[in-house]
Amino acid sequence: MGVAGVSAKLFSVLAKNKISIILISQASSEHSICFAVDPKTSETIQAILEEAFKIEIDNGAVDSISVEKELSVIAIVGEGMKSSTGVSGKVFSVLGKNGINVIATAQGSSELNISVVINKKNISKALNAIHGTFFEVNGQILNLFLVGGGLIGSTLIHQINQQKTFLKERKNTTLKLIGIANSRKMHIDSEGIDTNNWKEILSEKGEISNLGAFVTEIQSLNLQNSVFVDCTADKEIVQHYYSLLNSSVSIVTPNKVANSSSYEQYFTLQRAAQNKGVKFLYETNVGAGLPIINTLQALMTSGDEIIKIEAVLSGTLSFLFNNFRVGDKFVNVLKEAKAKGFTEPDPREDLGGMDVARKILILSREVGMELEPEDVKITNLLNQACENAPTVDAFFEELEKDNERFEKLLLEAEAKDEVLRYMATLENGKVSIELKSVGRNHTFFNLSGSENIVAFTTERYKTYPLVIKGPGAGAEVTASGVFADIMNISSFLG
Amino acid sequence: MGVAGVSAKLFSVLAKNKISIILISQASSEHSICFAVDPKTSETIQAILEEAFKIEIDNGAVDSISVEKELSVIAIVGEGMKSSTGVSGKVFSVLGKNGINVIATAQGSSELNISVVINKKNISKALNAIHGTFFEVNGQILNLFLVGGGLIGSTLIHQINQQKTFLKERKNTTLKLIGIANSRKMHIDSEGIDTNNWKEILSEKGEISNLGAFVTEIQSLNLQNSVFVDCTADKEIVQHYYSLLNSSVSIVTPNKVANSSSYEQYFTLQRAAQNKGVKFLYETNVGAGLPIINTLQALMTSGDEIIKIEAVLSGTLSFLFNNFRVGDKFVNVLKEAKAKGFTEPDPREDLGGMDVARKILILSREVGMELEPEDVKITNLLNQACENAPTVDAFFEELEKDNERFEKLLLEAEAKDEVLRYMATLENGKVSIELKSVGRNHTFFNLSGSENIVAFTTERYKTYPLVIKGPGAGAEVTASGVFADIMNISSFLG
Repeated sequence: MGVAGVSAKLFSVLAKNKISIILISQASSEHSICFAVDPKTSETIQAILEEAFKIEIDNGAVDSISVEKELSVIAIVGEGMKSSTGVSGKVFSVLGKNGINVIATAQGSSELNISVVINKKNISKALNAIHGTFFEVNGQILNLFLVGGGLIGSTLIHQINQQKTFLKERKNTTLKLIGIANSRKMHIDSEGIDTNNWKEILSEKGEISNLGAFVTEIQSLNLQNSVFVDCTADKEIVQHYYSLLNSSVSIVTPNKVANSSSYEQYFTLQRAAQNKGVKFLYETNVGAGLPIINTLQALMTSGDEIIKIEAVLSGTLSFLFNNFRVGDKFVNVLKEAKAKGFTEPDPREDLGGMDVARKILILSREVGMELEPEDVKITNLLNQACENAPTVDAFFEELEKDNERFEKLLLEAEAKDEVLRYMATLENGKVSIELKSVGRNHTFFNLSGSENIVAFTTERYKTYPLVIKGPGAGAEVTASGVFADIMNISSFLG
Repeated sequence: MGVAGVSAKLFSVLAKNKISIILISQASSEHSICFAVDPKTSETIQAILEEAFKIEIDNGAVDSISVEKELSVIAIVGEGMKSSTGVSGKVFSVLGKNGINVIATAQGSSELNISVVINKKNISKALNAIHGTFFEVNGQILNLFLVGGGLIGSTLIHQINQQKTFLKERKNTTLKLIGIANSRKMHIDSEGIDTNNWKEILSEKGEISNLGAFVTEIQSLNLQNSVFVDCTADKEIVQHYYSLLNSSVSIVTPNKVANSSSYEQYFTLQRAAQNKGVKFLYETNVGAGLPIINTLQALMTSGDEIIKIEAVLSGTLSFLFNNFRVGDKFVNVLKEAKAKGFTEPDPREDLGGMDVARKILILSREVGMELEPEDVKITNLLNQACENAPTVDAFFEELEKDNERFEKLLLEAEAKDEVLRYMATLENGKVSIELKSVGRNHTFFNLSGSENIVAFTTERYKTYPLVIKGPGAGAEVTASGVFADIMNISSFLG
């Protein structure tokens, strides 16, 4: 019949039946026309149209008349819309970034109106997301779900609390804490949890913690700009990342487990985030808040090639060798570090190099190498007796016996006017961790406290590397780094 | 009459006249309906409809029947479109980023098709931009217009040429050199200029250079993903930035002039880029390719506060004081640097500190300070006689006479086991440049060659600063930095 013919018949039937039409859309070169009506009348209308088009349906001129339900129309209305480019871009991209499927759209040429048809269940999510993009008054809201109420998590909430006014005034952004869970309790409040008072609220109102239920609730709440913040070092939580990303929830985490286990897991999560157009950010996996992963990604994106990465990536081991001087016993420096809270309860976890191994493994994957954890070659700092000691005290005793070996290493370095540095190296497709001695001209000679340092030697930075240095551990800078990642999501969402 | 009534009458009139309709769109809660037809028939149709709706127009039930011309419809068609979120987001956001106004859209619910009506003049720009977003085969094309065929410009073209295969295979991106201009000649070829052979092409086919004409041609070519790359240090070119940004052309430049002249100019360009949703990138304004501006922007975005910035920002001055040792004459170190091509033809331009002043001024603006060039306090390295010397040779003679002063500074530093560093400092809202002496524990003690270094002391990096170090001058790293900025635009465009 041709588009005009079908449309003519369609609309005269509708007019005759006094049916009011909300929206009409017929995209070019398609053989269908779509219109929106009050859902209450949809079945009546379907019956009327099937009756009216009976002949066309029977002879195959019209395929079918189908009804889609549980839909809503959002109309974005504005005077300046026609002349300002990018309004539709903003609308559709914020919907896409929130995983909201656009079922139909209409925007007429003389209109100050873009209409978008979406699933009813996404309506408040979509409205809030679009509102946040266009309206200065309310600004952008990010909905945070935090797991881990320990030192990093508490510091993060404290920082968010302190920055509240600055973020609202300068960035027009509000970070809303919607859910919090620790190993014992969890609490979700879609209105937001008071960040001044979250500990009391969690202990008073919290249910018994159940991570699966927590994640399901995040998904069914279906809030716009949802960000899952994992401030734990937990293995279990990582199992939920994939499902979260797939529900268009962004993830920010200092938790290294996801990126430093099997390559397949790393790759799967990267791809899930990319497919869904959400963010999976983990700058704090390496060097806490230092811009190490961001810089490496920028080098890669811009087509530079990595020749070598050298790095001191453990604040603990940096502290140990920055403070181990001739005349000291290594075991005493370690005891001092432990007393300052710089080590794990069992310091062998630091000295075993596994933490550094995870970090350099993550960097190697960012470079594009498909390495597995067992590919990192660690030269052990400790002897077998230390490793085997049944308790931490027994370990300290064994380490004291092994003092001579450490002293010898230090004296040898001193004799060459060098210092000891516990270095991770990526070179020629291989990744290794080893105690090395470096001279005055080496970039790593001058390190203080528990500073981390990374030197990228690349095709472009060949003679002198690109170096990033600074505090790479501690609750304050780690929380800041997590905060920075959250704010990156905020700018990404526009 | 109600929407259905008007539509019914409209489409029966159209059907009776056998007019085929390309697209229909009527957004919700609006009192207009829009449809697309073959432009050749538009006036006939208008007459037919004005006749048909004469009564409704006369009694005010229908306002008017208007025709918009010079439009085109783009249909984005795909099987998987309905189920994959974000397709419409990608389409509309790439159009927005290219400054293409969307006049009407239609996407029906049972459709595998999004139709977008745009101005005819934007048709190939829009097609190319959308193609680049969705089709693996062709990938994304960035259209480059390069001004300045000197060392940095040539190195950049060389790097692009070398990375061609890598970019295509790994990033699915093609950097196409569409236009090139130097002070003598200019050439534009919308098919692309052979990057292997650009010098010959420019000298053979180039017209006499005329920057205004070059810019006008960029604007009238109206290519998708246009990037203007200014590899000069020219003041004139900067006059065109605003107009380019306003035509949705991104700008990448190591040229410091735009950002280090009046604050108003800096602010105007920032805002123009933001309003148009295009990029104005100048990472190479400070420290060449080192991620200094990006890191500072990330710190600011994430709500950190800058307490102090200390920096060695001149490769030349870094080289001079890294190599000025007791027993040397300062003038000889300077002559060596000049012989190596590390200085300006008149080295007083380096020693005057103006270049460093521009850089720290730019950093101060990134921090949010509204400073003018005259607010940078420079402690002059040279005495009046050196300043006044009429020729470079005369200047060298005067500097030789002043040797004792430099020797004294060096000896004083040495006596304290310190070294001299030409440092820019931002602190307490003030910006200054001065030769300082720093000890072994200072981060700036270990510098080699012509390395730059920046230390950010912030609310979060208070005890130990965040430090970035590496080569901050030279054609290779500057061109790489420009390249990196271009690739950032490529990822921004998706």
